[in-house]
Amino acid sequence: LKSLTEHLWFEVPNRRGFVNITPKIEELVHRSGVSEGLCLVNAMHITASVFINDDEPGLHHDYELWLEKLAPHAPTTAYRHNRTGEDNADAHLKRQIMGRCRNYQGQTGFRPVGTNFLRRIRRATAEAGAG
Amino acid sequence: LKSLTEHLWFEVPNRRGFVNITPKIEELVHRSGVSEGLCLVNAMHITASVFINDDEPGLHHDYELWLEKLAPHAPTTAYRHNRTGEDNADAHLKRQIMGRCRNYQGQTGFRPVGTNFLRRIRRATAEAGAG
Amino acid sequence: LKSLTEHLWFEVPNRRGFVNITPKIEELVHRSGVSEGLCLVNAMHITASVFINDDEPGLHHDYELWLEKLAPHAPTTAYRHNRTGEDNADAHLKRQIMGRCRNYQGQTGFRPVGTNFLRRIRRATAEAGAG
Repeated sequence: LKSLTEHLWFEVPNRRGFVNITPKIEELVHRSGVSEGLCLVNAMHITASVFINDDEPGLHHDYELWLEKLAPHAPTTAYRHNRTGEDNADAHLKRQIMGRCRNYQGQTGFRPVGTNFLRRIRRATAEAGAG
Repeated sequence: LKSLTEHLWFEVPNRRGFVNITPKIEELVHRSGVSEGLCLVNAMHITASVFINDDEPGLHHDYELWLEKLAPHAPTTAYRHNRTGEDNADAHLKRQIMGRCRNYQGQTGFRPVGTNFLRRIRRATAEAGAG
Repeated sequence: LKSLTEHLWFEVPNRRGFVNITPKIEELVHRSGVSEGLCLVNAMHITASVFINDDEPGLHHDYELWLEKLAPHAPTTAYRHNRTGEDNADAHLKRQIMGRCRNYQGQTGFRPVGTNFLRRIRRATAEAGAG
């Protein structure tokens, strides 16, 4: 049974950002040599999401506004989680909306469209491998 | 290692619709000959969802109202994505709530209850295989 | 191909509750003898969720308030699903936000952080195996 595991690291310059990781995933699926199987792409940080959708700037803008409406960042004191000294409770909520991971079936020639990676900047490198 | 892949196509008459695909999935799991394994059921269109819940008309009605409240279709000009000429930005948001795919463990005799398929009608056949 | 399936049962004393099942999952992954593979943890009740996040009381409190804001329990008559004699339509909605299942890659030494189990108390034992 063939398998390939790879840990990817991302840093985005702002509090939130979208990174299209589809080319990277395609490359890894190709490198795995698996012609039919499952590919699990999951965010290892609990304020990050992996989702599949259009890589279209207008849509990303809409997601930003929408997530901010459903789970506003401020006032940060509105969240009990922030009493721990963090200010990212909203990101823990937003990530539940956007989802944590995506599975797709990897077949030769299969191309997932618009896999994007919503990434909270803070604590990115320090904690991305922790959960 | 046994596996079976099948691409299913659906068309619904209205902008949104619920299709119970559980019988179809059960049939495919049976046909695969796999007695213990994983079954991935994922929507190949980025405004569609696959979810598991009651196939109960009242609940579907509640989902409709709720999704429309969280991500209203109109005014379509409120979404930057719609400047691309589409009018379905809300569906891209709604689908994040309902989820894209469901995995379940397929064992002989296992019956997933209420697998439903939320499907946006527009562009259904043209793009369902594209992502 | 090694595999292990286990059905876990939970009861929580109130309408909603959070149960950290990470230690149990780790134990099962260890017991499976699988050193590299996929682990599917899915809620078999359609008003329950499995999600991965901090096991932090403040965050759980935030999730409670947030889910209640997005999909209020009362008035129960606001939901058509409740005409069936149930009063849990809101839980069917909340569960869509929190997600149904989580996959993670099980490698020796891998530790998923903060797997929690959101569980509606009612009908817990009677229906947990039904879907």
